[in-house]
Amino acid sequence: MSAPTRRYHLDRLVDFAADLFAAAGMPSDRARVVGELLVEADAMGHDTHGLNLAPQYLDDLQTGVMAAVGEPEVVADRGATLVWDGGYLSGVWLTARAIGEACTRAKEYGTATVAIRRSHHIACLAAFLPLATRHDIMLTLASSDPSVAAVAPFGSYQAVYTPDPLAVGIPTPGDPILIDISASATTIGLTGRVQGQGERLPGPWLVDNQGHASDDPGVLATEPPGALLPLGGLDRGHKGFALGLMVEALTSALGGYGRADGPAHWGAAVYLQAIDPEAFGGLDAFTRQTGWLAEACRAAAVPPGRPPVRLPGDGAMARRRAAAAEGVPLYPTIMADLAPWAERLKVAPPAPIT
Amino acid sequence: MSAPTRRYHLDRLVDFAADLFAAAGMPSDRARVVGELLVEADAMGHDTHGLNLAPQYLDDLQTGVMAAVGEPEVVADRGATLVWDGGYLSGVWLTARAIGEACTRAKEYGTATVAIRRSHHIACLAAFLPLATRHDIMLTLASSDPSVAAVAPFGSYQAVYTPDPLAVGIPTPGDPILIDISASATTIGLTGRVQGQGERLPGPWLVDNQGHASDDPGVLATEPPGALLPLGGLDRGHKGFALGLMVEALTSALGGYGRADGPAHWGAAVYLQAIDPEAFGGLDAFTRQTGWLAEACRAAAVPPGRPPVRLPGDGAMARRRAAAAEGVPLYPTIMADLAPWAERLKVAPPAPIT
Repeated sequence: MSAPTRRYHLDRLVDFAADLFAAAGMPSDRARVVGELLVEADAMGHDTHGLNLAPQYLDDLQTGVMAAVGEPEVVADRGATLVWDGGYLSGVWLTARAIGEACTRAKEYGTATVAIRRSHHIACLAAFLPLATRHDIMLTLASSDPSVAAVAPFGSYQAVYTPDPLAVGIPTPGDPILIDISASATTIGLTGRVQGQGERLPGPWLVDNQGHASDDPGVLATEPPGALLPLGGLDRGHKGFALGLMVEALTSALGGYGRADGPAHWGAAVYLQAIDPEAFGGLDAFTRQTGWLAEACRAAAVPPGRPPVRLPGDGAMARRRAAAAEGVPLYPTIMADLAPWAERLKVAPPAPIT
Repeated sequence: MSAPTRRYHLDRLVDFAADLFAAAGMPSDRARVVGELLVEADAMGHDTHGLNLAPQYLDDLQTGVMAAVGEPEVVADRGATLVWDGGYLSGVWLTARAIGEACTRAKEYGTATVAIRRSHHIACLAAFLPLATRHDIMLTLASSDPSVAAVAPFGSYQAVYTPDPLAVGIPTPGDPILIDISASATTIGLTGRVQGQGERLPGPWLVDNQGHASDDPGVLATEPPGALLPLGGLDRGHKGFALGLMVEALTSALGGYGRADGPAHWGAAVYLQAIDPEAFGGLDAFTRQTGWLAEACRAAAVPPGRPPVRLPGDGAMARRRAAAAEGVPLYPTIMADLAPWAERLKVAPPAPIT
């Protein structure tokens, strides 16, 4: 039996998370950025990539796996392009800062691209997108973790690379389109959660060591182990494999640090690109097209009894609004997992609203 | 019974195609670029998107649907970004020229991005990638056709947008990785070919008007009609839908002309971006990572009796080498479809080698 889901005031959750990270050694302005973005993920409903990650981050801060203080090192800078060595500082903070820099530079160059090597984990990609779309900037954000192998190349069952998420924020006249997909059929987070609960995945998104598709996380624990399938599975998985290779190139190869270096340090290689529609056909022309397409998709015919088409981000934006009005619902394990940290760091947890 | 596949000398095929396009009114240097890239597609094995398209292109040149002469109009130019109105000039020629421009500019800015509105069709995206990778540039190329609706949004059966191909050329120490995938489960070209032959698709890549997956092209001819499924199908099609929206934004929205304008003119909205690894972590660091990953994928374990993992482009590069050495194999209908054009335009077709 799992505990019931409780709701918490959004701002109080941010305060709580920010206070925890600050108490663990992070400068308070950075701690707040990380708190805001983790709570944003929970508010959007991405509950494996919000405060669920905070205990691991706090542990990494205390052991030094995440650097609490310091600045990223500039490896290369041509104005429209920038490379940082993140020194395993908070990936959430590094990414938010890089997005701010890229948005400013995109207004001058039309596009601005940042690669970050040796970042710590960056959590929920979708949560970052509004940082750009609210300034009428289209943002692409991708990451990989060169210290982890979880997804098999198409045709293999051996894990070689990570799910390699790709997120894209697209301004429209209304809510932005918020894309956040992995190049794999499922994620490490979801697989780990169902594995811990002795359950199965909702679909056959894994491959066993005989090359068969499976919904059983147990296939990852055999000898030799199976792996996550690329998006497209056994049928069209060459496409998901291709997307994974693209993300690996944009992240690790552009950053110049990755699997070839055999890193053992949990972390991320990050790629992001801001595009200013004003430098192309103009913002009005851009949102005229994206708005038209969004409405055409929402109005597209569905079989009798089926729900209407939702655009990527529609659900997240609705949940975000409900979370702001009624509180953020937290997955039942999250506050329990944070309780020892709250006690150790002497930060009072917020009381639930409901 | 279909005719046997014949092989033709690669250079003679290029001459033939170039002479046909020149005889139809295109300047000879442009006619050669188009001929080279269509034959390149056949040499790579992309046989729906090579010379198979030449009769349609020739027809469009004669009717004025494709403009034979003229220059693209510069809509916007900030150095690192460029927008052309293609005036329905040859999309193959426009794209090749834009790639050349983008590669030059990327050496200065680090990246260079071009959007082309109102281009004619651009044929095979993969064929363009070596134009960049041979200069150690990573290239992303995408297109949509705002005059065509073929793919249904996830959850719908009504076609709203196009398969929206995305191609990426990635330099490695050896052959480049050549990605060319559509955001749909299958393509219009393949669906049309099996439909014409009364066959079925190799997989359930369409959706009928009841929302069921199908391999029968007949579901596109019902009332109301079905559509192509997004990549990921009924299970994970939200991801393919997301990719399609990304490509639509990069192509039509950045170019500032698209579905909102209701174009009836067969054509393309094109997006391409050249990335110079030297501006990031350096070319050597880049290819060290991509080479390591390529080898790790090729060496990944496969079930007993299965073929080893192939990288995107491995098959195309092998076919390309065989075509250069032994001749280009042409799909049986292609030369027969070109014969009336050869006669009308007084261009002698090459004799087959075998």
